[in-house]
Amino acid sequence: MFSQTDFSHMERALALAARGMYITTPNPRVGCVLVKDGDVIGEGFTQPAGQDHAEIRALKDARARGHDPRGATAYVTLEPCSHFGRTPPCVNALIEARVTKVIAAMEDPNPAVSGRGLAILRDAGIDVRCGLLANEAYELNIGFVSRMTRRRPWVRMKIAATLDGRTGLPNGDSQWITGEAARADGHAWRARACAILTGIGTVREDDPQLTVRAVETPRQPQRVLIDSRLDVSLDARILEGAPPWIFCGAEPDMAKAEALRERGIEFTSLTNEQGKVDLPAMLGILADRGINELHVEAGHKLNGSLLREGCIDELLIYLAPSLLGNAPGMFDFTPPGTLEARPHLRFHRIDRMGDDVRMLARFADVKADVQPLT
Amino acid sequence: MFSQTDFSHMERALALAARGMYITTPNPRVGCVLVKDGDVIGEGFTQPAGQDHAEIRALKDARARGHDPRGATAYVTLEPCSHFGRTPPCVNALIEARVTKVIAAMEDPNPAVSGRGLAILRDAGIDVRCGLLANEAYELNIGFVSRMTRRRPWVRMKIAATLDGRTGLPNGDSQWITGEAARADGHAWRARACAILTGIGTVREDDPQLTVRAVETPRQPQRVLIDSRLDVSLDARILEGAPPWIFCGAEPDMAKAEALRERGIEFTSLTNEQGKVDLPAMLGILADRGINELHVEAGHKLNGSLLREGCIDELLIYLAPSLLGNAPGMFDFTPPGTLEARPHLRFHRIDRMGDDVRMLARFADVKADVQPLT
Repeated sequence: MFSQTDFSHMERALALAARGMYITTPNPRVGCVLVKDGDVIGEGFTQPAGQDHAEIRALKDARARGHDPRGATAYVTLEPCSHFGRTPPCVNALIEARVTKVIAAMEDPNPAVSGRGLAILRDAGIDVRCGLLANEAYELNIGFVSRMTRRRPWVRMKIAATLDGRTGLPNGDSQWITGEAARADGHAWRARACAILTGIGTVREDDPQLTVRAVETPRQPQRVLIDSRLDVSLDARILEGAPPWIFCGAEPDMAKAEALRERGIEFTSLTNEQGKVDLPAMLGILADRGINELHVEAGHKLNGSLLREGCIDELLIYLAPSLLGNAPGMFDFTPPGTLEARPHLRFHRIDRMGDDVRMLARFADVKADVQPLT
Repeated sequence: MFSQTDFSHMERALALAARGMYITTPNPRVGCVLVKDGDVIGEGFTQPAGQDHAEIRALKDARARGHDPRGATAYVTLEPCSHFGRTPPCVNALIEARVTKVIAAMEDPNPAVSGRGLAILRDAGIDVRCGLLANEAYELNIGFVSRMTRRRPWVRMKIAATLDGRTGLPNGDSQWITGEAARADGHAWRARACAILTGIGTVREDDPQLTVRAVETPRQPQRVLIDSRLDVSLDARILEGAPPWIFCGAEPDMAKAEALRERGIEFTSLTNEQGKVDLPAMLGILADRGINELHVEAGHKLNGSLLREGCIDELLIYLAPSLLGNAPGMFDFTPPGTLEARPHLRFHRIDRMGDDVRMLARFADVKADVQPLT
């Protein structure tokens, strides 16, 4: 159904989409390639929110290079938008440009619009196909899909541990368990996330900046702190720079609350029955604020809470070839009564990373919601 | 220095050697290919101890197929033996057959004979080279090299654990953490070992047979039990079939000792300053008894003791994509005071195994002792 040429052009569109990795948030990363008479006449990828989408960039690129897109085929990694957001709908631009064929990798995951863009193109007489390299397109926008279909970010929890599953010394020292390659890779995952979340335990122990430093990025992700009682020190490094979002529980320190307000630092009280931060509700709020991918770097207590409350989609684990014995582990939770009842994941990727190994393992898979329309 | 043809023939010799994986103990696994005028005229691999070595098999094979080995090149995965053991020296047979060239993958690791076989061949006017695919040959006989150069077996510790490094429920249930593919693979590693070691804790908790069942094997490895006080129940399954070797400490249960003697079950008292079994001394005894590869399947306590006493060469870890939280871990030992002081390994291999992942990580590397003679 798709030719080898189709695959090549869509692969190029995906590569273009990936160039928007750190900039399109909260919009999806999308790439577009225009092909006419066998030649690529225009390329583009989605720009920061409010600027051109991939299709518009590709049409402008074609014209700037002296080509008329009429009769061209557009390869797009996501169904073109059909609604007026901050920019006019891309389907209009494609119809006006008289492209004759559109090949999309996947539908827009937003249930409210899913398939509408493709239908409008079809109604305009354009030959429309969907589903080419859908997996690859899905991976690029896993967070956007999650936010659109589940009203929660895709939650990726990063853990660096020894081969025996220990994350640091009993005194809290964890710098550094893994090597330089793994740490730089961890920063690349931070960079692609819309937000980085940690807990007050980690802030107290490590006083992290929680910024992207080891890789180049045009923007820093939003920082999020879970701090039930507002124990955070006003000197904590996470309070420096762009203010973090703080979530607290039922009985925050009121003096600290006032001090934070004075510094213009936002906090949200969001309490569950135990008086702690309601973690699932927090994910809903983060989704409403446009967070697609949430990167978690916390200690075993918050990791355990997020696990118990079903708030993790994926583990990003770096294992160093070393041992720490009876030291703190990855997750603080009471084992189930039977082996069958333990939390199960599946390995998604396993790669060597310098002297360490990186494992991506998934609990959830939102992909079931992304059915290609053929 | 070696041609592509040389590589091909040595790869074939290595494949032949691997066919002796479960049978040559305590001898090394060796393969031999005889090539004359570009054709393979004879092949062989080492048979069970007391029967023909690889070179003799290859010479007999050539003659049985109507070929005269005179003028042939012999590819052997290990330096031919130069001493009378249970069989006459292979160098004599090669010289008498008038082969004109011998290419060996590696020297015999036995410091007492290392290089002597090659020297005798050279003195007889044979063109001798050594070092072709030495790594591969070394891996096949890593246990034999260890026993010859260090007077201890190569100690491979197998652990099946969850992604967070936990080996079972607090009630001891660990069947099954990993899937069928990983368990079958674990039995293949058991099968290639000369002996399988466990501790009394595991015997009490799991009552294992400690035999090879999931793969075909012509012989069962020797079973070894560490049981400081001779607490083993006379009904334990490890006492069924061929008797295990038991190592006990300073104060064994004398009635149990008597009962074991009556059943013809051997035990050795081998005590360190703490009155426990002297583990390094035990490795020396196992080496003296011809154990090349020792496969360990024990609990976190014995694993921790073996680790502390420097008795592990390699970890064979199967990680299942699941979590167990605050459950027993891999190694019971007090963490070091600094991260730098933790035990370090290096990853040797990482492979998917069904839904699980298998990691081979090494502490030691005896290869430094295997210098190819060129």
